[in-house]
Amino acid sequence: MRSVEWHDGKVRMIDQRLLPAEFQMLECENYQEVAEAIRDMAIRGAPAIGATAAFGMAMAAHCSQAEDRDELLADLREAAKTLRAARPTAVNLSWAVSRLMRRAESAGDGAAIRKAMLEEAQALANEDVEVNRRLGQHGAALVQDGDTILHHCNTGALATVDYGTALGVIRTAHEQGKHIHVLVDETRPRLQGARLTTWELEQLGVPFTLIVDNAAGHFLRTGQVDIVLVGADRVAANGDVANKIGTYKLALAAHDNGVPFYPCVPTSTVDLALPTGDDIPIEQRPAEEITGVTYQGQPIASEDVPVSNPAFDVTPYRYVSGIVTENGIAYPPFDLNLRRMVEGSTEKERED
Amino acid sequence: MRSVEWHDGKVRMIDQRLLPAEFQMLECENYQEVAEAIRDMAIRGAPAIGATAAFGMAMAAHCSQAEDRDELLADLREAAKTLRAARPTAVNLSWAVSRLMRRAESAGDGAAIRKAMLEEAQALANEDVEVNRRLGQHGAALVQDGDTILHHCNTGALATVDYGTALGVIRTAHEQGKHIHVLVDETRPRLQGARLTTWELEQLGVPFTLIVDNAAGHFLRTGQVDIVLVGADRVAANGDVANKIGTYKLALAAHDNGVPFYPCVPTSTVDLALPTGDDIPIEQRPAEEITGVTYQGQPIASEDVPVSNPAFDVTPYRYVSGIVTENGIAYPPFDLNLRRMVEGSTEKERED
Repeated sequence: MRSVEWHDGKVRMIDQRLLPAEFQMLECENYQEVAEAIRDMAIRGAPAIGATAAFGMAMAAHCSQAEDRDELLADLREAAKTLRAARPTAVNLSWAVSRLMRRAESAGDGAAIRKAMLEEAQALANEDVEVNRRLGQHGAALVQDGDTILHHCNTGALATVDYGTALGVIRTAHEQGKHIHVLVDETRPRLQGARLTTWELEQLGVPFTLIVDNAAGHFLRTGQVDIVLVGADRVAANGDVANKIGTYKLALAAHDNGVPFYPCVPTSTVDLALPTGDDIPIEQRPAEEITGVTYQGQPIASEDVPVSNPAFDVTPYRYVSGIVTENGIAYPPFDLNLRRMVEGSTEKERED
Repeated sequence: MRSVEWHDGKVRMIDQRLLPAEFQMLECENYQEVAEAIRDMAIRGAPAIGATAAFGMAMAAHCSQAEDRDELLADLREAAKTLRAARPTAVNLSWAVSRLMRRAESAGDGAAIRKAMLEEAQALANEDVEVNRRLGQHGAALVQDGDTILHHCNTGALATVDYGTALGVIRTAHEQGKHIHVLVDETRPRLQGARLTTWELEQLGVPFTLIVDNAAGHFLRTGQVDIVLVGADRVAANGDVANKIGTYKLALAAHDNGVPFYPCVPTSTVDLALPTGDDIPIEQRPAEEITGVTYQGQPIASEDVPVSNPAFDVTPYRYVSGIVTENGIAYPPFDLNLRRMVEGSTEKERED
């Protein structure tokens, strides 16, 4: 099952806010509902929100009452604006919306645009699965039999259309028969590691241990980790990596102990237009994500405590061992080699 | 009000498991109950559990049915064993028990021992408050007007008999009229930062912002922190620091951004008998501390997920800017200067 798909004129997705307690589908009937699902993180993960936004654009075309081409394109531009604004950090969202918008502009009349938009969104979603499988193959070469892998947040099938990025690497290594063990960071505030990654690893039959984010340094310092694998939401041209909050400290601890640290991303996550990570916008999320937990039945702080909740941080490229993509692994110097990976994907698209 | 005291033949303490939702006192009527209160973390914080164990020893003397000196000393040795085993990492516990045991052995008959034990426990508790006030004065010199201080776990009045260590430094700086702001790490798994530190800072009137532990690196990297202050549970002779899990990654992030990192400890937390931090035992705590939280009303993982929950980590001395004690600030080389600080305290005791 895919995390998001077009189904019977609706955009259907697994509602990740309810996992692991409940498995339930959410259906969106217009692009505004799709934007809200992204904003409220019913669906999350950079590649998954890219595909969801693509279906949102197709939905906007599907629902538009426009009677001519120009009106329809105007409606689509409006939808593009709303969808792009849903979340600021992951570049895949903006990348997918732009791709769909370009497709609309190159199609013929209204009917042709509507048809082309759905086809393009489907193609983008299918490509995501294919890209992740290739990424998994490249990354699995880094994983040795017997390795313990430390993983942050959720980068599995749920974070993509299917298969996953860093968790796709883990899955491929497992399918290759390598005996691996995953240390799962719980990933506060939204606990995607505890809620989603343990759930996915259980289904895949990959052995794991859940730890609090604070414990990752201890496991690294005491020699209990062989490799750190994470996803990313945006990679700048110099190799700086924006990813789920906490990734930066994790990368530092890996570096301090000589443990390799690899973000795993489709090239659609690489933003060559941004020279460094300092230019990546960092989303602030609601306070309830922090204060909305209870500890042994009690609220963890009074409701009105002042809270700051940045959702992402930036890991400087000097702590990144390499970046795993569907076209291979980019090693330093990243400014040169990331461009090669991205251009590899453009050439691939041209070949198709 | 003190976090722990002798009251009417009982050891009375603030039950920190219930804060901030409920303020309730816990009374222990024998040393086994005192040991259980330490083990289950009704009271926590290295200096506080030291004083609590001292009262536990006094309680053992108070309750013993022994009819002669030797029998009483045997009972006390039994109590010492139980109390020492309650928690392994903080050296203050063992330090306090040993001090009380020595006092018993140097006293006369049974009645004299019983009287001496209570006096010694009271003296130890009073000294803790005095030591923290002196520590606060030394540490406050490091804090400038306008500083933002990042703080991990809880090191306040609740973690000591009164006043606090790192939070005592913050309190002193605030009382000196310096305008400061505290970034409070929530401190998973038991959330002592969210539950206890925000509660104490509110009472002191010190402005603060609660963040998840994962966010500390972001605030450090973006230049929003001037100094990091933490407590410690055991400091080895070379300056390696065992403290609440997550401290090591925090120290790395401070170091990476040139932000000073100071553990604040009474010299009773320095264990000169241990050459390095690798020799410090790291306590494993129950899985429920991790899985016993709910996120927006839902359990964060299925109950039977495999969990590992080390309660402390070790920060290598090379990431420690200095160690604030009641006798001044020890700077590198720590193997030389920590000994001086500890000997300073012995001389002080001899003078008294």
